[in-house]
Amino acid sequence: MKERLMQLLEERKDEMIEIRRYLHENPELSFKEEKTAKYIEEFYKDKDVDIQTNVGNGYGIIVTIKGAHDGETIGLRADFDALPITEEADVPFKSKNEGVMHACGHDAHTAYLLVLADCLIQLKSDIKGTIKIIHQHAEELPPGGAKSIMESGHLDDLDAIFGIHVLPLGPAGTVGYHSGYSFNGRTYFKLVIKGRGGHGSSPDKANDSIVAGSYFVTAVQTIVSRRVNPMSAGVVTIGSFDGKGSFNVIKDSIEIEGDIRYSDEDVQKVIDEEFHRIVQGIEALFGVSCELTYTPDYPPLYNDPEITNFVASSLKEIQDKDIKEVKEFPKLSPSEDFAYYLQKIPGSYFYIGCTPKGIDKPFFNHHPKFDIDEDAILVAAKAVGHVACSYLER
Amino acid sequence: MKERLMQLLEERKDEMIEIRRYLHENPELSFKEEKTAKYIEEFYKDKDVDIQTNVGNGYGIIVTIKGAHDGETIGLRADFDALPITEEADVPFKSKNEGVMHACGHDAHTAYLLVLADCLIQLKSDIKGTIKIIHQHAEELPPGGAKSIMESGHLDDLDAIFGIHVLPLGPAGTVGYHSGYSFNGRTYFKLVIKGRGGHGSSPDKANDSIVAGSYFVTAVQTIVSRRVNPMSAGVVTIGSFDGKGSFNVIKDSIEIEGDIRYSDEDVQKVIDEEFHRIVQGIEALFGVSCELTYTPDYPPLYNDPEITNFVASSLKEIQDKDIKEVKEFPKLSPSEDFAYYLQKIPGSYFYIGCTPKGIDKPFFNHHPKFDIDEDAILVAAKAVGHVACSYLER
Amino acid sequence: MKERLMQLLEERKDEMIEIRRYLHENPELSFKEEKTAKYIEEFYKDKDVDIQTNVGNGYGIIVTIKGAHDGETIGLRADFDALPITEEADVPFKSKNEGVMHACGHDAHTAYLLVLADCLIQLKSDIKGTIKIIHQHAEELPPGGAKSIMESGHLDDLDAIFGIHVLPLGPAGTVGYHSGYSFNGRTYFKLVIKGRGGHGSSPDKANDSIVAGSYFVTAVQTIVSRRVNPMSAGVVTIGSFDGKGSFNVIKDSIEIEGDIRYSDEDVQKVIDEEFHRIVQGIEALFGVSCELTYTPDYPPLYNDPEITNFVASSLKEIQDKDIKEVKEFPKLSPSEDFAYYLQKIPGSYFYIGCTPKGIDKPFFNHHPKFDIDEDAILVAAKAVGHVACSYLER
Amino acid sequence: MKERLMQLLEERKDEMIEIRRYLHENPELSFKEEKTAKYIEEFYKDKDVDIQTNVGNGYGIIVTIKGAHDGETIGLRADFDALPITEEADVPFKSKNEGVMHACGHDAHTAYLLVLADCLIQLKSDIKGTIKIIHQHAEELPPGGAKSIMESGHLDDLDAIFGIHVLPLGPAGTVGYHSGYSFNGRTYFKLVIKGRGGHGSSPDKANDSIVAGSYFVTAVQTIVSRRVNPMSAGVVTIGSFDGKGSFNVIKDSIEIEGDIRYSDEDVQKVIDEEFHRIVQGIEALFGVSCELTYTPDYPPLYNDPEITNFVASSLKEIQDKDIKEVKEFPKLSPSEDFAYYLQKIPGSYFYIGCTPKGIDKPFFNHHPKFDIDEDAILVAAKAVGHVACSYLER
Repeated sequence: MKERLMQLLEERKDEMIEIRRYLHENPELSFKEEKTAKYIEEFYKDKDVDIQTNVGNGYGIIVTIKGAHDGETIGLRADFDALPITEEADVPFKSKNEGVMHACGHDAHTAYLLVLADCLIQLKSDIKGTIKIIHQHAEELPPGGAKSIMESGHLDDLDAIFGIHVLPLGPAGTVGYHSGYSFNGRTYFKLVIKGRGGHGSSPDKANDSIVAGSYFVTAVQTIVSRRVNPMSAGVVTIGSFDGKGSFNVIKDSIEIEGDIRYSDEDVQKVIDEEFHRIVQGIEALFGVSCELTYTPDYPPLYNDPEITNFVASSLKEIQDKDIKEVKEFPKLSPSEDFAYYLQKIPGSYFYIGCTPKGIDKPFFNHHPKFDIDEDAILVAAKAVGHVACSYLER
Repeated sequence: MKERLMQLLEERKDEMIEIRRYLHENPELSFKEEKTAKYIEEFYKDKDVDIQTNVGNGYGIIVTIKGAHDGETIGLRADFDALPITEEADVPFKSKNEGVMHACGHDAHTAYLLVLADCLIQLKSDIKGTIKIIHQHAEELPPGGAKSIMESGHLDDLDAIFGIHVLPLGPAGTVGYHSGYSFNGRTYFKLVIKGRGGHGSSPDKANDSIVAGSYFVTAVQTIVSRRVNPMSAGVVTIGSFDGKGSFNVIKDSIEIEGDIRYSDEDVQKVIDEEFHRIVQGIEALFGVSCELTYTPDYPPLYNDPEITNFVASSLKEIQDKDIKEVKEFPKLSPSEDFAYYLQKIPGSYFYIGCTPKGIDKPFFNHHPKFDIDEDAILVAAKAVGHVACSYLER
Repeated sequence: MKERLMQLLEERKDEMIEIRRYLHENPELSFKEEKTAKYIEEFYKDKDVDIQTNVGNGYGIIVTIKGAHDGETIGLRADFDALPITEEADVPFKSKNEGVMHACGHDAHTAYLLVLADCLIQLKSDIKGTIKIIHQHAEELPPGGAKSIMESGHLDDLDAIFGIHVLPLGPAGTVGYHSGYSFNGRTYFKLVIKGRGGHGSSPDKANDSIVAGSYFVTAVQTIVSRRVNPMSAGVVTIGSFDGKGSFNVIKDSIEIEGDIRYSDEDVQKVIDEEFHRIVQGIEALFGVSCELTYTPDYPPLYNDPEITNFVASSLKEIQDKDIKEVKEFPKLSPSEDFAYYLQKIPGSYFYIGCTPKGIDKPFFNHHPKFDIDEDAILVAAKAVGHVACSYLER
Repeated sequence: MKERLMQLLEERKDEMIEIRRYLHENPELSFKEEKTAKYIEEFYKDKDVDIQTNVGNGYGIIVTIKGAHDGETIGLRADFDALPITEEADVPFKSKNEGVMHACGHDAHTAYLLVLADCLIQLKSDIKGTIKIIHQHAEELPPGGAKSIMESGHLDDLDAIFGIHVLPLGPAGTVGYHSGYSFNGRTYFKLVIKGRGGHGSSPDKANDSIVAGSYFVTAVQTIVSRRVNPMSAGVVTIGSFDGKGSFNVIKDSIEIEGDIRYSDEDVQKVIDEEFHRIVQGIEALFGVSCELTYTPDYPPLYNDPEITNFVASSLKEIQDKDIKEVKEFPKLSPSEDFAYYLQKIPGSYFYIGCTPKGIDKPFFNHHPKFDIDEDAILVAAKAVGHVACSYLER
């Protein structure tokens, strides 16, 4: 049956590319993917599946393919939102939606998964178990779509979940995997430090918020340098220190904003605790008052080692002209809301090489000139299809 | 002759008040005192004196009163510019020049000195030596008028110089003095720290200018805490820390502005050296590049102890119904460009109490509701007149 | 009567020097001045005075000279303890008590006051009021003798108090005065910061007390740089940072010791508050625990302005061959327990120049080579005698 | 032939244990392993091999086993020095050399390698290529033995090198591997900061080295927090801050010592540069002078990924009752001078589980109670033997 699936996918490679280009020309921002969702819904019209729309906090769609044979239930997820970026890639199917661009490859994700789903529907009689196709909205914008889809209960029966991301870390034909923590988690913070204004010549009659803020910045360095396990990763960046004022007036308050990253939940916990402690410390140290907004976004993404091992092994054993290399990829520093699925469901999120042919230094995801080798779409379909069937049949 | 002078001044008290009110209604900003200068020039028209106009870098005026007898040459100075403040004082002679106000009392300074000068002209035959009346422009706005008047050479022959400031530190009738350093000097600085921008998740690929700036702020504290003689006064205030940016982007550069104060030239020298050293230190410490603008404004004002002692003693001995108390005043933290005269010419800058009658907490100079007890104008005229004559006759 | 007193004192100049030399050869440490006290007691034997011994927490002596006429009661104080310093001065009357030295001039203080007291006793019939002679022990070692003498109640009836210190700030013949705060107050502190030890390669498993201590040191700088009135004086010195350990082991605790100075009680209050706040801040900031010992020693010494003015004026008017110059001295940074008397009793503590003849850069008080021009002893006796009589007669 | 080797090793298991126990009872400190080297030399006496003694900067021994067939040349290394630790393990073969202990398992390393070498000598006629047995001295004490052995030239012809360490990270039977950087590199530093001493009350006349040192400590935090790639590991620990002094005296100099760790050579380079820059920065910032001793010890250990993969695969395929599990081990934070071999020769350093039977929380290497399950010695011999033969035969 897997051979048949591979063959069907190969036959529909052009269709995948066509779908991807259509989506690329018609990108929509996170939480506003009305037409994209409608397009996906249309695709499944008259097919023998159960379809749920408007799942979660947006246009999420879940398509349930029930195999003829009893078995486990697995999920396959592709995201479909685009980014607020003005496309600069020189392609014939350039974005028609000014200021919005599929600069992260979600068009390719959706394209492969639609065709793969259709092929799996065709092969239903051979499938052992159930496959839920998850077309997810709003991956790019916290709080994202994944969390709410999990909360909808539609995935409560999943035994495993899989997803991929196209990445220009290798040519089309490369599949990458990483076991354990693989994407960093992320937290946003804003800190307002309030002292008391005054004249520059009389610091004793004021309480200098710039001084308090500066000591805060220096103290924060110790979180990463002394509190985070050196073998893990943690970053605390202060991106904004807004203390603009008049040269000879002591500022009464300043505002600091920043971005925190962590490779795993232990590091997240340590940084949370230390950051809050340091804010309290600065209040005590300088007699200022602090207002802290501290908003964790996506958690660190944890690939189940056993399932990831299964993904890697089963793909290494495949004999397929399109899947040329299967190898470990490094941890990645961005964040990804697939992490929410993996907090509850064992699974693996892996990578599909997509570096355009003949390019040494490809533009990366989120760059206005980001582009992919469209051969990667078929690779994605085959890899995910192979993993899914192997998993259900194991 | 001093008795005669006191009598003449008393007779013209109303005229002084009238002049002050005229000036108060017609304030002009520093370096733009065209009409005020013209008014002063008119005042001396047809009088038997030598008059120099447009002295220095603005509308400075020097009137030379040559006494009939040989003697020393002294200067008496009053400033005549106003401030960019919208008057809120409830007086019948409120500023007619919207947004400009004589909120520092220079109207009173000029009023007393014009009448005093006229009286001295009348008494020329009794005067031993020469008196130069200095009507100075632009005291309020660095670089000020004093420095350029000194550079004009017109005061090269001065043996001593005197000036006063009205201050609501006591009622009309109080005269204050302070020996040695009396007003603080001041320096403005701007520091641009340039690192290298980058993404918040990859600090190692950037060079964080907010971090460098914050350590700069903490290091700067040691100038005052460890380098300045504790018995002297020094202040380094950072009034502006402009590092506003996006929360998850590492800022490539920030801009810091601030205000430095020093009680004397030793402290000024120490702060200058240490501040420049710390800027270099931050460059070395973080591999950033710094652009520093460092602009000393007015120097610390140093009252010659011997002459100040002379001022105090001669005023204490006077028997005059208008000069009721002569006492030491504290050091003052503002700056004053009379300091430039005193760098070259021994002299003393003293104070005339002007707290309005019946007021406990008077509004201070530079406040939109600043006002004076106009009796203080006569006190100023008498005090300066008495000191000038005593000095020439001593 | 003052003329007579001056004459008597002149006649006994040699005796004063003799007494001073005796005391110099026989110095005793603070709180251990048994023989010195006995010597003083002997001096007053058979004289017509009331004498109290063992006053306060040591060998304090109070001698009451009751004048024949009614009047106010004043105190004259001289301290008599020596220092744990090995004398290096090359004098014939070098210390015979190895390791102990009158390196602060208390020998001269006691010498002049004994003879002055005796002369005043002789002149009792002319004295209007009462003079209490205070021979004070233990000035050099906190808690000092002054505080306990005040608490003894023996001085409750004093209307004014006077004392002097010999200082090589001018030749014998110079008398100095300073109005208001004149000597700094002082506080000792010890801070133990306890974190958690660990291996150098695993900072996340420890809590680094050296890091906490270093941030403490940087934060403490802001007390002086931003909290203390720039016109006042404050110093926070960390003299000891004991964090010695093995290079690759994280220290579990460190110990910091230091010295705080303040020119007046406002500054003392500010530093007290801020220092304690910063200690709490460091606990919060780093999750360490701190043990603070904070021990104020002598308070800032405040010379009553009116009485100081009286001292200065009456000495300036004196026509005396030995008192050659009376002038303002600067504030002094050491501490002096005369401050305790002045907290309750108005008075003035002034200075007697004692630079040895022919010396440009004299060794200062507390130096092993400290020495005085013995002519200064007579000057002290005359100045204090003149002031005392003038004060009672005013 | 591999089967034959495994069989021979099994037969000599007891001998290995006996050797280990002999060495355990007779431990010698690094660079002083005279008797141990003699013992090893004796072992090879009369065997048909080439033996080099006193190789490198100590008692290093290289034994060359030339196989009958042409092929590549590989090295197998075991270290034989002990630690300055007083044994507290309760074993019958406890150290007889008071204060010295084989607390790191080098006794087991040497025991397995001697017997393995002997078996390989027996099987020479079957060996394709050359095997160099490296008995290395002084691994525990920088500069270590490895570097000098490499410099001796005896290993210039090696195509690959292998070594193992016993670790209580799993029971005997577990073999661990890690690809890429696996042990951290390490640098020792000492920094003397020289300011200028002075009295605590006059900071302006001194240059406070404790303040400079404290700012140094805070600045150093930014190396790890902002300069080191968050996906790599770096640690800068200040283990000693020796600034002990008198509470009221400003220290003229302090001494800081510390320990730097880095997961790879990129991080090492970054820390080197930044550390030196910060030292210069502190000199500029505070006008102090710094003396820096900066001594890199062992570099990060880099296991060749291809060869490590070969090790893992070939061990996973083995069917052997003693090698029960082969799995990835984490990076380790200690340092190991095997890193020097791997800087020039591709190879892999892997791990032999040795947790004593029935123990949940074993004492770790370098603990006075460290002990091993002696079954691990045979596992080591088999694993290394298998890898070596497989490698030469591949």
